Formats: sequence, C-alpha cells, structure tokens
Amino acid sequence: MRYELYYWDGIQGRGEYVRLALEAAGADYVDVARTKGGEAKMMKLMQGGATPSFAPPYLKAGKLLIGQTANILLYLGDKHGLAPKTEAGRLWAHQLQLTVSDFVVEIHDVHHPVGSGLYYEDQKPEAKRRAAGFLAQRVPKYLGYFERVVKANKAGKGRHAVGARLSHVDLSLFQIVEGLRYAFPKAMRKLEKTAPRVVAVHDAVAALPRIRAYCESPRRIPFNEMGIFRHYPELDAE
Amino acid sequence: MRYELYYWDGIQGRGEYVRLALEAAGADYVDVARTKGGEAKMMKLMQGGATPSFAPPYLKAGKLLIGQTANILLYLGDKHGLAPKTEAGRLWAHQLQLTVSDFVVEIHDVHHPVGSGLYYEDQKPEAKRRAAGFLAQRVPKYLGYFERVVKANKAGKGRHAVGARLSHVDLSLFQIVEGLRYAFPKAMRKLEKTAPRVVAVHDAVAALPRIRAYCESPRRIPFNEMGIFRHYPELDAE
Repeated sequence: MRYELYYWDGIQGRGEYVRLALEAAGADYVDVARTKGGEAKMMKLMQGGATPSFAPPYLKAGKLLIGQTANILLYLGDKHGLAPKTEAGRLWAHQLQLTVSDFVVEIHDVHHPVGSGLYYEDQKPEAKRRAAGFLAQRVPKYLGYFERVVKANKAGKGRHAVGARLSHVDLSLFQIVEGLRYAFPKAMRKLEKTAPRVVAVHDAVAALPRIRAYCESPRRIPFNEMGIFRHYPELDAE
Repeated sequence: MRYELYYWDGIQGRGEYVRLALEAAGADYVDVARTKGGEAKMMKLMQGGATPSFAPPYLKAGKLLIGQTANILLYLGDKHGLAPKTEAGRLWAHQLQLTVSDFVVEIHDVHHPVGSGLYYEDQKPEAKRRAAGFLAQRVPKYLGYFERVVKANKAGKGRHAVGARLSHVDLSLFQIVEGLRYAFPKAMRKLEKTAPRVVAVHDAVAALPRIRAYCESPRRIPFNEMGIFRHYPELDAE
C-alpha cells in the first residue's frame, strides 16, 4: 500500500513528524501537496469525506483518512513497529508523543503569541516577551522531563525513550532538538548541555541510515521562517 | 476496579474531560487531589514511577498510570464503550478529541498569551488583542468544523458527533459549550447560533441522568477564574 501524506508544501511543520516515521519505516508514500495539483487535492479532502480534518497533516492509508499528527503516529507506530505492542507500552509512547505535541504548540506560539492569523511583524514585542519565559522556563521544563524519561528507560540503553527499540517518540525528539538548534542556536548551546540523554537519542536517530539518507535528500525541506521552528535572532538568548 | 484520577483541586481544567467520561460511564473513581493529603500524593506520583506525566491529569487504572487527557479518554473510551469499536471509528473519535485539545489550548492562551508562568494581570493588553482574533476567527473556525462533523454523522441523529452512540467526543463538546458560555457570554449568544448542531449535542449530554446528577453534585467544581474558561468581561465581545 502506498500512503498519501497531505501537508503544506514548503515547510516541515507538523507534517515532518509523520514524514520522519514514514522514512524510518521505509514506507512507500507520496507527499501529495508537493506534487502537481496536490495542494488543491489536499484542500478538497479537508472539506469533505466522512472524516475531515481541522487542518493538515492527514494521511490516507487505504480506506482510512487519519488526521492529527499524534493520531497518525499512533496508527503508523502499530503498523510499522514504531511503538511497543503491549497496551501499557502503546499508551505510554502515545502519552509522550502528545507531550511533544504540546511542546510544538508552545514553540510555534513563541513567534505567534497574539494570534496565528497575524503576521509575526504584527506581534514582535509580544513575541519577545513570550520568548524570554519560553527559554527560561518552558524549554528547560520540557527537556528536563524528557531527560528523566530517557534516563528511567534502562531498556533503551541511552538510545531510545521507550522500550528497547526505535519508536515514533525518538523520531520526534530528534526533530525537536534539530528545530530548537535552528531556531535558538545561542540558547540551545547552553540548554542542550542540561539534557545530554535527549541529545543522545537525537544522535542515535540521526545515525540511522534511512534518516541520514532522508535528511540529505530533497524530500527534507530545509528549516525556514514560515514553519514552526523559526530563527528570529531577536528572540534567541542574548 | 476503582480508578484514581489525579488532577488539581479547585478547578475543572483538563481534568474535567476525564471526570465527565468517568461520570457518564458510571465508573467507580476517586478524585485523589480532593481528598486529604491527595495533592501531595499527586505531586509525588508526577516525579517518579515508570510512566511519569509532564502535568496532571493522570489516571491510575490498576497497574497502568496514564497521562495526557486525550490518551486517558482513548483508554476509557475502549473500556467503557465511549468510542466506536472499529479501528477507523476509534481513530476518528480520537482525532476529534485531539482537535478539542487544540481548541482548549487556544481557549487557555486567550488569557495567557505571553506565558503560563505570568499572571493574567501581567498580560492584559496582550490578552485583549488575542481575544479579538480568538472570537472573530478561531471560535467560528472550531465550532464550524464540529458543526460540519455532527451534520455529516447521520447515524448520530443530531445527538452524537461520532457513530450512533454517546462518545467521549460528545462529552467534551458539552464541556466546550458550557465553558465558552461561562467565559464569553456576550460573544456566545451570537456564536452558538452558528453551530446549532454542536449545541444539540451539548443538550443531549446535559440531559443524560448521570451527567445531570454529576453537574448538580459537589463533585462538579464551579467555573472560576483559575481554570481554563475564565470570565473576564474585558475579553468578551462588546
């Protein structure tokens, strides 16, 4: 079966967590909006059908059309061995993925604290205020949490957040570290020293042949200032 | 089995979506933080164990300790018939619940646009700016989405968002309507006219004997200005 991924062209955004899972699984998929006429197809699918999504990404898997990033990863985790098979393990991996989702919302809202309908340029003073608390309190809180999770997971031998094998959680933590380094390079130089185990999970993912090949391919869209992780120097640490 | 729910005393917050599911299911549970010494027990459980949570709510179900609101509802939905049994139906209900979660973040951030670590009083001008876009664009977008979902679900006969039976999605939509009415009474008088089907789902939930009994009991904490839905008249429509 060839999956159809629907997500905005031009940005990594939330679609990237799905792309990383598909790539790590070696799954056959087409990134529809990046093909000719694909964006129109995506918009049409968002309006109708039995299970319309509030927003991209969504994944067509045979007859299923699945929306919400963490929900898609719950599905792919089961199908491709990217999550534990036990009930307890699946719920735990999903819980961590939902905490990644919460973190992603906060990362986005640093540059859009007043509203997603306004330009960054219309909310720069508010963004600067939000960035200060984000870097001082929120990033340490999230990274500290995931650091404790990786530490407690003895079976992962420092390479995996959940169990003894690669999961969608590892892949998403890879993206979080990559993105924070891009968006806040000065702050991250200090912050990632406080979360060496999270960085080790990132490094283990980065070394996977399929992920390395993906990141070097044109399928990986570079970070930019239209996505979730944006490098605005004025929002980084001094 | 008696469930143990862990959530802050004094507010409905995210715990309320879990309480509504437990109440609708007639499940046996204890709201631990509202018992003597319960909050200390909650804080201790957040720090340790095999599956620590980033934040409350979490639910102890036998040996399982499950965090993240939507994840808890995924579990309870399966155990208590509050979600469809098919793979497609479960994923669809969960997708809608995750969209409720996104909406809840936005509702919270109206009064905390700059940061959750600051008081509302320290971000009032920013909150006023955010509230304007929230009421003009975001609430109509979310309510419009759920309105289409309920309309498309013929099996629900106007009473249910998913399938022919009560689900955790209906319960959460009930809470969304209740909360928006409390927080933004002036704006909601107009807004809910645009989403009569969502209001009908709310009304069907409100009429359930178990939910009616719950809402009239001291177990239902009243809305207040420490929770997610806060009534600040200056943020409501003119």
